[in-house]
Amino acid sequence: MRRKVTLKQIAKELDVSISTVSKSLRDSPEISEDTRQKVQAFAKLYNYKPNLIALSLKNKKTKTIGIIIPEIVHHFFATVISGIEHVANEHGYNVIVTLSDESFDKEVINMEMLANGTIDGFIMSLSKETQHKKDFHHITEVINQGMPVVMFDRVTNDVLCDKVIIDDNLAAYEAVQSLIDKGFKKIALITTVDYVSVGKLRTDGYIKALKTNDIVVDPKLILKIEDIDICDHQIEELIKNNEIDAVFAVNELFAVTAIKAAKMVNKNVPEDISVIGFTDGIISKYSSPSITTVSQNGIKMGGKAAKMLIERLESEEEEEEHFKTEVIETHLVLRESTPTL
Amino acid sequence: MRRKVTLKQIAKELDVSISTVSKSLRDSPEISEDTRQKVQAFAKLYNYKPNLIALSLKNKKTKTIGIIIPEIVHHFFATVISGIEHVANEHGYNVIVTLSDESFDKEVINMEMLANGTIDGFIMSLSKETQHKKDFHHITEVINQGMPVVMFDRVTNDVLCDKVIIDDNLAAYEAVQSLIDKGFKKIALITTVDYVSVGKLRTDGYIKALKTNDIVVDPKLILKIEDIDICDHQIEELIKNNEIDAVFAVNELFAVTAIKAAKMVNKNVPEDISVIGFTDGIISKYSSPSITTVSQNGIKMGGKAAKMLIERLESEEEEEEHFKTEVIETHLVLRESTPTL
Repeated sequence: MRRKVTLKQIAKELDVSISTVSKSLRDSPEISEDTRQKVQAFAKLYNYKPNLIALSLKNKKTKTIGIIIPEIVHHFFATVISGIEHVANEHGYNVIVTLSDESFDKEVINMEMLANGTIDGFIMSLSKETQHKKDFHHITEVINQGMPVVMFDRVTNDVLCDKVIIDDNLAAYEAVQSLIDKGFKKIALITTVDYVSVGKLRTDGYIKALKTNDIVVDPKLILKIEDIDICDHQIEELIKNNEIDAVFAVNELFAVTAIKAAKMVNKNVPEDISVIGFTDGIISKYSSPSITTVSQNGIKMGGKAAKMLIERLESEEEEEEHFKTEVIETHLVLRESTPTL
Repeated sequence: MRRKVTLKQIAKELDVSISTVSKSLRDSPEISEDTRQKVQAFAKLYNYKPNLIALSLKNKKTKTIGIIIPEIVHHFFATVISGIEHVANEHGYNVIVTLSDESFDKEVINMEMLANGTIDGFIMSLSKETQHKKDFHHITEVINQGMPVVMFDRVTNDVLCDKVIIDDNLAAYEAVQSLIDKGFKKIALITTVDYVSVGKLRTDGYIKALKTNDIVVDPKLILKIEDIDICDHQIEELIKNNEIDAVFAVNELFAVTAIKAAKMVNKNVPEDISVIGFTDGIISKYSSPSITTVSQNGIKMGGKAAKMLIERLESEEEEEEHFKTEVIETHLVLRESTPTL
C-alpha cells in the first residue's frame, strides 16, 4: 500500500528541521537555493502536496473549524473548547481539535494537516516553543492563502489576525493590589519563563502593582518556573527561605503547589500566607483550602473566538483587513486561600 | 460561494432524523423505499457525498487517527488522549479529536466528517445517547467499509471491533469489598442511569460485593443520577435521610459532591462517612479531604488503543477478523476519604 509522505519524514530523510521543509516548500527566501531545490525535488518524488495547493480550491467549504491548543490536560483550554463548540454548532459548524503538546514542530504539522482541505479556518493558542522561537511562518502563510485564523490567550503581535485575550497585565495588577489592600507587603510571585506571553504580562502586572504602592521589587521573591513537573522543590525553597506573607501564582497548578509547600514548612493558608491563583479551574474549586483566583472565563473566550471566525468566514468582503482584538473581562473569585477581611 | 450541504441540513430540510438520512444514504433496509429515494435525490441534488465514496479511495493513507470522545471537560478522557497522542506520534501518526457532547447526532456527524478521507481509523468512546438508543449503524458501516475502529471505556457488544476496557465490575466489587473489610455495612451507591455501560457494570459489582458478604441490597441506598449538573440535592437527601456509613460513587464528581453534601448535614468524612470514588483525576487529588479512588490509568488505556489501531492499520492481512478486547488493570488509590485502618 502506497503511503503518503509527511513533513516529518521529509525532514528526517534530508536531515533538516520541519520548519526548513515547510519554508522550502513555500519558496521562502530564508532558505538557501540549494536546500529549497533538494526539498522540493524530494517532495515531488514522493507526491507530497503542501496546503498551498489544497487551498487554491477555495470554493470547497467544509463547515469545519480547526482548533490547535498547547495541551489538553488543562481545564482552561477544555472550557475554551466547550465555548467554541457551542457557538460553532449553533451556526452549523463542526469542530476538530488537535494538540501541539507545547511543541513547535507539532503545531506546524497539525496546521499543515488541517489546512489541507479539512477545515475552513483556525482558532489557536500558541505553543510555548513557538513563542520562544518567534517563528510564525506557518501561521502567516495560512493567512496569506486566505484561510482566517483567530488566536486566543497566547497570542503574538507578529501575526496580523483576529485575537481574543484577557488583559493579563491588568488582571494581575488587580489581584496583587487586592493583597496589598489587605496589608500584605512581602508578596512572592510564582510565574513562567518570560517567553510565555501571558506569564510575562502577568509578571509585569505584579511589578506595576508593587511599584504603584511604593513597595520595592525583590528579585528573590520572583520565581520563574521552566518545567511545571519539577517545580515542587523550587516553590518549597521560595517559601522556606523568605519571610513572605502572600503568594501570587500565574496559574492554578503553581497556586495549589504553593499551598502544599506551605503545609510542608508548617505554614497555614490563609493564616500565615495568603495565596491567589490564576485560571478558575476545578483544582481551585476543590483544593483545600479552596483557592482565590482570577477567573478567565474560557467559555466566553471560546464563544467569542468562534463568533469572530465564523463572521470572517461568512463575510462577503474578502479583502477586509481590519483585524480586531477582543478583550474578555476577568474578575477575582474569592475563596478560602485569602482572608475574608 | 457554494457551500457543502451537511447531514444535518438534509435532515432539517426533509424533516427526518440525522440517523434516517445517514441510513438512507447507505441503502439501509430499515428505511422505507420512499424515504430512501427522497433523501438520496436531495443528497444528489446538493452534491452530498457520504463517506462510502471517500472510503473507496483506500490507497490514500492520511497517517492520522480520529478520536471521538463524549466530553472534554473530564480529566479521564484528557489522559486517554495524552496516551493515544504519545503512542501515535512515536509511530508517525497525527491525532484529531472531536467531541460528541454525549449526543448521538453529533457522534454520527463527526464520524461522517472524519471518515470522509481525513483519517485512517477511529478510537472512540460512545456517547450516552448512543448507548441509550443502541443505534450503532454509523460505526458498523465505517467498519464494513474497511476503516478500523477501536472502542475504549464505553463500549458495546453490538459492534465487532477491537476494544480496551477496564474490568468495571471487578474494580467496583473490590472497592466495595474494601469498605466491607473495614466493617461498614450500610454502603450507599451513587451511580449513573443503567444505559451507561460502565455505570451499569459498576452497579453490578457493588451488588455482587454486598451479596457475597450476605448484606441485604437496600434500593433506598442506590441513587441513579441522570443529570450530573443537578445531582447536589439528590445526593444530600440520600445522605440526610438514611443511616449510612460509607458511599461508593462511580465517578469523581459524584464522590466530591457526596463529600460536600456530608458537610452540609454536619457529617465528617471519613469519621462519620467513608467515600470511595472512581477515576483518579485532579479533583480526587486536590479535594478536601482527598478522595480514595479506583484508578483507571487513562494514559495506559489510550496507549493500548493506539497500539491496537496502528497494528490493524499496518497489518498486511486485511481479512483477519480476530478482534481483541484488552483489559487494563485498575487499583485502589488510598487517600483521606477512607479510614487508614
